[in-house]
Amino acid sequence: MKLPILEGTALPELVRRVTQPDIHKYAEASGDYNPIHIDEQFAAATPLGGTIAHGMLVLAYMSEMLSAAFGEPWDSTGRLSIRFRSPARPGDTLTVSGQVESVAEENAIVCVTCSLSCCNQAGEVVVSGEARVRIPASL
Amino acid sequence: MKLPILEGTALPELVRRVTQPDIHKYAEASGDYNPIHIDEQFAAATPLGGTIAHGMLVLAYMSEMLSAAFGEPWDSTGRLSIRFRSPARPGDTLTVSGQVESVAEENAIVCVTCSLSCCNQAGEVVVSGEARVRIPASL
Repeated sequence: MKLPILEGTALPELVRRVTQPDIHKYAEASGDYNPIHIDEQFAAATPLGGTIAHGMLVLAYMSEMLSAAFGEPWDSTGRLSIRFRSPARPGDTLTVSGQVESVAEENAIVCVTCSLSCCNQAGEVVVSGEARVRIPASL
Repeated sequence: MKLPILEGTALPELVRRVTQPDIHKYAEASGDYNPIHIDEQFAAATPLGGTIAHGMLVLAYMSEMLSAAFGEPWDSTGRLSIRFRSPARPGDTLTVSGQVESVAEENAIVCVTCSLSCCNQAGEVVVSGEARVRIPASL
């Protein structure tokens, strides 16, 4: 693992700019072609006023931040609990941040609970939540 | 909304076959190029014995199932709580299923809690969890 895993340790932030081409790529990869994500004309006529990113694309950024922080993919054994709070739009700059909230060791596995947040350039919370990452104590 | 939203209602299942090209597309869309996902030679030499899908790609299938069930993107205001239980690999056929566990209405919003599960062709649970979907009562 890369971080000193102590309560209160901040995870290294990840900053990503949301672009319409990335949303299109995400639609192709996931198979989710809902027009609110990819049809700018359709989306402009809805109350949202324009396309929005898939919520799961924002979670992908959170996942990337966690994998970078802990030095290995965390998403085969971890837990994630999140709330979508506001949509992310093309042109938004998202900052994913987090903090170690608690650390426990059990049966040679270190369980790290982290608070998570993703905010846009206006400081609005896009996603908030918590992850539990399990890491072999030998690492 | 498309479903009769009653406790015990099963959500329509979604079946997806995981392929290495889809995992590559997902890496491009998310920016997560960890070799455990995309480098077959590297992955074969690890304890996992081969590449695995990004956990968030499996969540994307869960999200797609929920959006299809409720007839609109749910991932701007919903909540999700999941546990990754085993990895998904290229060639796996994943079945995402769910059930309405409870329904509550508050301030003209219907809050639907659903249990979720994603299993592979051997019946192993890949991801389990719960989603809370918020739908305007007028729909």
